[in-house]
Amino acid sequence: MRFDTVKIIFTDVDGVLTNGDLLVLNNGLYGKIFNTRDGLGIEKAIAYGIKIYWITGRSDYATKIRAEELGCKYVFTNGRTKEDLIKNILNEAKLKKDNAIFVGDDITDVRAKSVVKYFLVPQDGHKKARESADLIINKNGGKGVLREVIDLILNEE
Amino acid sequence: MRFDTVKIIFTDVDGVLTNGDLLVLNNGLYGKIFNTRDGLGIEKAIAYGIKIYWITGRSDYATKIRAEELGCKYVFTNGRTKEDLIKNILNEAKLKKDNAIFVGDDITDVRAKSVVKYFLVPQDGHKKARESADLIINKNGGKGVLREVIDLILNEE
Amino acid sequence: MRFDTVKIIFTDVDGVLTNGDLLVLNNGLYGKIFNTRDGLGIEKAIAYGIKIYWITGRSDYATKIRAEELGCKYVFTNGRTKEDLIKNILNEAKLKKDNAIFVGDDITDVRAKSVVKYFLVPQDGHKKARESADLIINKNGGKGVLREVIDLILNEE
Amino acid sequence: MRFDTVKIIFTDVDGVLTNGDLLVLNNGLYGKIFNTRDGLGIEKAIAYGIKIYWITGRSDYATKIRAEELGCKYVFTNGRTKEDLIKNILNEAKLKKDNAIFVGDDITDVRAKSVVKYFLVPQDGHKKARESADLIINKNGGKGVLREVIDLILNEE
Repeated sequence: MRFDTVKIIFTDVDGVLTNGDLLVLNNGLYGKIFNTRDGLGIEKAIAYGIKIYWITGRSDYATKIRAEELGCKYVFTNGRTKEDLIKNILNEAKLKKDNAIFVGDDITDVRAKSVVKYFLVPQDGHKKARESADLIINKNGGKGVLREVIDLILNEE
Repeated sequence: MRFDTVKIIFTDVDGVLTNGDLLVLNNGLYGKIFNTRDGLGIEKAIAYGIKIYWITGRSDYATKIRAEELGCKYVFTNGRTKEDLIKNILNEAKLKKDNAIFVGDDITDVRAKSVVKYFLVPQDGHKKARESADLIINKNGGKGVLREVIDLILNEE
Repeated sequence: MRFDTVKIIFTDVDGVLTNGDLLVLNNGLYGKIFNTRDGLGIEKAIAYGIKIYWITGRSDYATKIRAEELGCKYVFTNGRTKEDLIKNILNEAKLKKDNAIFVGDDITDVRAKSVVKYFLVPQDGHKKARESADLIINKNGGKGVLREVIDLILNEE
Repeated sequence: MRFDTVKIIFTDVDGVLTNGDLLVLNNGLYGKIFNTRDGLGIEKAIAYGIKIYWITGRSDYATKIRAEELGCKYVFTNGRTKEDLIKNILNEAKLKKDNAIFVGDDITDVRAKSVVKYFLVPQDGHKKARESADLIINKNGGKGVLREVIDLILNEE
């Protein structure tokens, strides 16, 4: 696989940047558990000139906070499909399918495969997502999946 | 096993929708860790017309918040047995034993087996629950047990 | 091993009732993660007439909250050794060494072995604790260690 | 390997004292999960006269709270390299390279190897860190890595 044309990474959040866990406190607060390994990789990729978009079907302020702290764009689907969102973002950025990869872990992510160069899936992604993957990542969701992807792109694996 | 008659899912909470972990903060707040994979499955099952009841022996506001966010009913046993609760709910909904499954992980869940079609138990359920199970789910509690059950029902496994 | 004389259980907290994790929030709040499987076992043991003491070298309000919610005694060592504390508690309760077991996971717990009938250690306890154990529990700390102990005592394993 | 000259331990935080997880709540609070096994080891090492510095590239109040509670120094790199920081601290304390070890888990930690006696890496550290390690620790990050290091130094393994 060749990653030298990649200029933009789209990533799902739950199950990729987290292991899908959702903390709920009995006062109504929510929390998610991200991983600093992904954070280090993201900072490197951005310094290298790669744009990173977090696309999530679940509106969540904790996710927005973490995405923006790391210099990523936070995109809530709000009913739109991920493939439509990705196409629009690529158009506006004057980038092509060949410049984009998408990391997702579940059935609803599979259709976005058609609008990017590669569709990558965490080791513990849903069976139907893994069956459609161009590459299955060694790490499980929340344990450094995006870092492994970025190491591949930057040849630091 | 045939799931085509299933119209209602009863599920225990601790050990099924969570791995049994209970976060306690030193200001008295409690928290539980649910999984978004279950959330996606639940939304699909409800869209398909299946009702989902969360039945718990431990009154907990975090659980109530999460159940209702996903469109499920939250039921606190409050001293009643799970089998009596399930029978009453089935009667009121004019549903039969054949329409119901129950997912539970511990000894106290086993007796409810008699009032549903199938009793399903997470991979890491208590030995006595696994011995009584009609089916042992591949996932551990809190890691997508209900999602796997729903994938079976909707043929998306 | 015979548990029929056991009337009192002493248990360490960190590494036994938790996996040793300590959540620290950046506003200074602390949290610990207990497991509801232990909770169910504790309620059964207490209903059976067994007393349970949580003994910890780290003063912690979250631990106190959870111990007392379950009907256990919370004891902070406050510089005293665990073996001295256990001896005093046994004396006051007019119980003998033969009536007591102690569950601990670390080097500092080993000396308390001398004042109880059995010293039990989680699967992932410190090597030096495991070497001194009368019995090594199958579960890891925080994953139902005390439940497994109580199942042994109540013959529900 | 000989640890008898070690008088000071430098340790990375994320991925060593934690497993890299970063809890983000939707009110903006952050949290990290430390382990009490490390805490016990740290208290022993300090009682033995060993100094411990936590060096992190991510400014974080939760980390500062935990470091200082245990009697360790909290050092935020704030753009400086870890090797420069370590050299300065050794100079000020009139200690030599031979008196220092460094525990780190990622690529950015490798260069600090040159200014300490040994560079130690958790079992689940980054491949490039493990390749440069003088010793790979059996434990994963957040599961007692520093405790294992201190047990080696104090011959309590």
